[in-house]
Amino acid sequence: MRRHASYRDVLKSAPIAFYMPSHAIDAVAEKVSKKITPTKSEADSEKAFAAGVSAALSKNLPKQCRMCFVGSAARDTGLRGGNDIDLFVSFPRSFSKEEIVAKTFKATRRALKAKWEKHYAEHPYLQAQHGAFRVEVIPCFETSPHEELKSAVDRSPLHMDYLQKRLTETQRRDVRVLKQFLKNAGLYGAELRVQGFSGLVCEYLVLNYRSFRNLVEAAAQWIPPVVVDMEGYYAERRHPFAEPLVVIDAIDKNRNAAAVVSETNLCKFIALCRAFRSKPSVSFFFGKRRKHSASEISRALRSRGTAIVILKIAAPKLVEDILYPQLHKTERALSRHLALQDFRMLGTASFMAEDGAFFVVECESAERPRLKRVQGPPVSAAKAVADFVRAHKAAHRGPYIEGGRVFAERLRAVTFLETEIGALLRSPESWGAASHFVKPLKKAKFAPPLSLKAEAMQGLAAYLFRRESWW
Amino acid sequence: MRRHASYRDVLKSAPIAFYMPSHAIDAVAEKVSKKITPTKSEADSEKAFAAGVSAALSKNLPKQCRMCFVGSAARDTGLRGGNDIDLFVSFPRSFSKEEIVAKTFKATRRALKAKWEKHYAEHPYLQAQHGAFRVEVIPCFETSPHEELKSAVDRSPLHMDYLQKRLTETQRRDVRVLKQFLKNAGLYGAELRVQGFSGLVCEYLVLNYRSFRNLVEAAAQWIPPVVVDMEGYYAERRHPFAEPLVVIDAIDKNRNAAAVVSETNLCKFIALCRAFRSKPSVSFFFGKRRKHSASEISRALRSRGTAIVILKIAAPKLVEDILYPQLHKTERALSRHLALQDFRMLGTASFMAEDGAFFVVECESAERPRLKRVQGPPVSAAKAVADFVRAHKAAHRGPYIEGGRVFAERLRAVTFLETEIGALLRSPESWGAASHFVKPLKKAKFAPPLSLKAEAMQGLAAYLFRRESWW
Repeated sequence: MRRHASYRDVLKSAPIAFYMPSHAIDAVAEKVSKKITPTKSEADSEKAFAAGVSAALSKNLPKQCRMCFVGSAARDTGLRGGNDIDLFVSFPRSFSKEEIVAKTFKATRRALKAKWEKHYAEHPYLQAQHGAFRVEVIPCFETSPHEELKSAVDRSPLHMDYLQKRLTETQRRDVRVLKQFLKNAGLYGAELRVQGFSGLVCEYLVLNYRSFRNLVEAAAQWIPPVVVDMEGYYAERRHPFAEPLVVIDAIDKNRNAAAVVSETNLCKFIALCRAFRSKPSVSFFFGKRRKHSASEISRALRSRGTAIVILKIAAPKLVEDILYPQLHKTERALSRHLALQDFRMLGTASFMAEDGAFFVVECESAERPRLKRVQGPPVSAAKAVADFVRAHKAAHRGPYIEGGRVFAERLRAVTFLETEIGALLRSPESWGAASHFVKPLKKAKFAPPLSLKAEAMQGLAAYLFRRESWW
Repeated sequence: MRRHASYRDVLKSAPIAFYMPSHAIDAVAEKVSKKITPTKSEADSEKAFAAGVSAALSKNLPKQCRMCFVGSAARDTGLRGGNDIDLFVSFPRSFSKEEIVAKTFKATRRALKAKWEKHYAEHPYLQAQHGAFRVEVIPCFETSPHEELKSAVDRSPLHMDYLQKRLTETQRRDVRVLKQFLKNAGLYGAELRVQGFSGLVCEYLVLNYRSFRNLVEAAAQWIPPVVVDMEGYYAERRHPFAEPLVVIDAIDKNRNAAAVVSETNLCKFIALCRAFRSKPSVSFFFGKRRKHSASEISRALRSRGTAIVILKIAAPKLVEDILYPQLHKTERALSRHLALQDFRMLGTASFMAEDGAFFVVECESAERPRLKRVQGPPVSAAKAVADFVRAHKAAHRGPYIEGGRVFAERLRAVTFLETEIGALLRSPESWGAASHFVKPLKKAKFAPPLSLKAEAMQGLAAYLFRRESWW
């Protein structure tokens, strides 16, 4: 059953005494805000710059086009030092994709001299660094809420309209505070590397719960799956989404704006909110990740008394949103395959570092058990049983019947974890490594833990000292 | 879904070519029968003896009593050297239990001088060895089929009536052959030590399938659960029994005559029938169990490369039908408890031998992994999570969130299998040892495998060389 956690529910259900004195969370938020809100001059110059570029662009574009300055800089919901300027060029729907791209590119290059780079989302757009600003100029089609999109980017101007009208000054501050809160916990960002909360989701959450404090109070009591349906598009939770966190997009009810948030990250957010609520403090926003020394790491490795193998490969050249899913898929496939080979898996990890991609594999023991108990078919399957018995004529023990099935035991040669992994590296496609990892895996090296460079060393440390920082 | 395997089904469904030439199984049965059928003089003297004792008893009993010579000796379905004489004294239902016991005991002691021993089933009866014969005299109440019983033993005279009327000469031979077939495979007997096929079930099966050969052909295709409802008491398999083999008692439709047959033993019978059918031979009836030498056993122990511990205790003084369930219950509890303590269990065994009861415990390794990953509550359970986090403040790794749950890892001191078992022996009641085993377990000894006496050594061998003999 899906649960619908709305602010009203929480107000009704939670005892009053449960809340912190009103000032505690608010006071922290105010303190944090002072450190993270862009300075007035920063905000002003962003807006002035955006207005200037917009005006210059307009002159070079068809009359029917509308310029939209969107994103967190436009809405004052960005963090200090963000400096991202997102400009959307909205074309009437009568234009073709090719036309809007060509016209936008031409106009942009005329309007502002910069090292424009062509990037690709659903269709191409331009990006350039100009002074302190990273500018993106993105062509799109005019769209109304819930209207079928011609391109996925068409939503951004609608989000801008929706949020700009509704967010109060204090809520904008709370969005910034929430972003810093999430960022510090590694939960901010919709990239597949992070699988966290996007800026848009932050704004929707603050809008829905009215304030950062209310959101924290509510989230502390969330039970996944969590549904936030601000506009009440779906009666009785009858929405079509299966993700652990569902934030119905206010301008497109067919979209879950929080689809990318993983169950782990949703749960981390819940636990984080509980911890923060019970002891509000600025440290939840500016905690420093401790670096672990080589000697700490080597002590941890020794004390665990397990078998740990680290694989290092050349990093496949991919955009992050393809790289990380492939990295994680390969890690899962490796883990599954070793478990099928009867290695007693304790855990795996994968990460990118300065000199490549890394996989960490940890087993209870460096060798797998020699004795293998093979489960055969149910006795009633006569043909299968006959085949099984024939195949296990020379079994170490068996074949024998236990309950409704046949079993046999084989004695295998000793196999070491490194040997088995070495064998797997010869044909990564056979056990399900992701496509772009197949080639690099064939040239993988075993990396002794203490030979790792600084970043990789901290990647290993993150595995060895895994612990939620707020606990 | 329950399957109803009747001989007619098999005849309809199996291709004709599937059957062995008619003579093969029959020829073996005939050959076997010659070796196992009681000699004529043996059978005659049994019947003469039973008739004599019955007559003598009658004189000392109330007029309304009826003497019944029942069991396999009475029906010519026993094996050579059986020599069990079962005499039932049937009283009108107006008598009380106390009366029928007292009158039967008095009459028996007058009718035949012997060392009568009092035994207990639902009520007491007498047993004595007299020459070659083991005689039992059992009081019971007159009963009609399906009538409510006054005592469980009241069925025996009804079984006698039912079977005596129906079994042909050849079928009686086939019952004897079936018994020998089962006996050789360790599947004969309803005792809880064996959990196999009772004599009555053998007679019902032969009667239902008309012959030993037909039974073998049918059973080779059984798919558990198997239902034999000879009298067709239940339409469309709507019987109330949950056991893997259901043989509806022809004289009491509320009883499954095969309730005691375990799933393992039913499956063994199925596999055995398949093997016999495909290569009928006298060796299926008189196979010798090979004895394993100490050096074979010691080689097997070494080659398995596992940790095997043998526990020896004083045998609790119990009747078999209590002893064996308690032995097996204790074995299961021990195995479960060690698995919960993270020992990687490969198997356990338990058996009785000349100098006590024995438990065999086999693990992958003599010590359990030091690192223990503890699964905590779902993150949504705020209170439980807080408790878990508090309890694992000093965790080796964690607490951390994975999916919807909290985890933590503890480092434990090295624990050896023998040490852990030693600790368990101090309080056997705490992990579920059966009641009569608690005391002996407190004085249990570790028995080095090669120190075992002959019977115990073969008990260990049965575990180490476990294999169905017909494969």
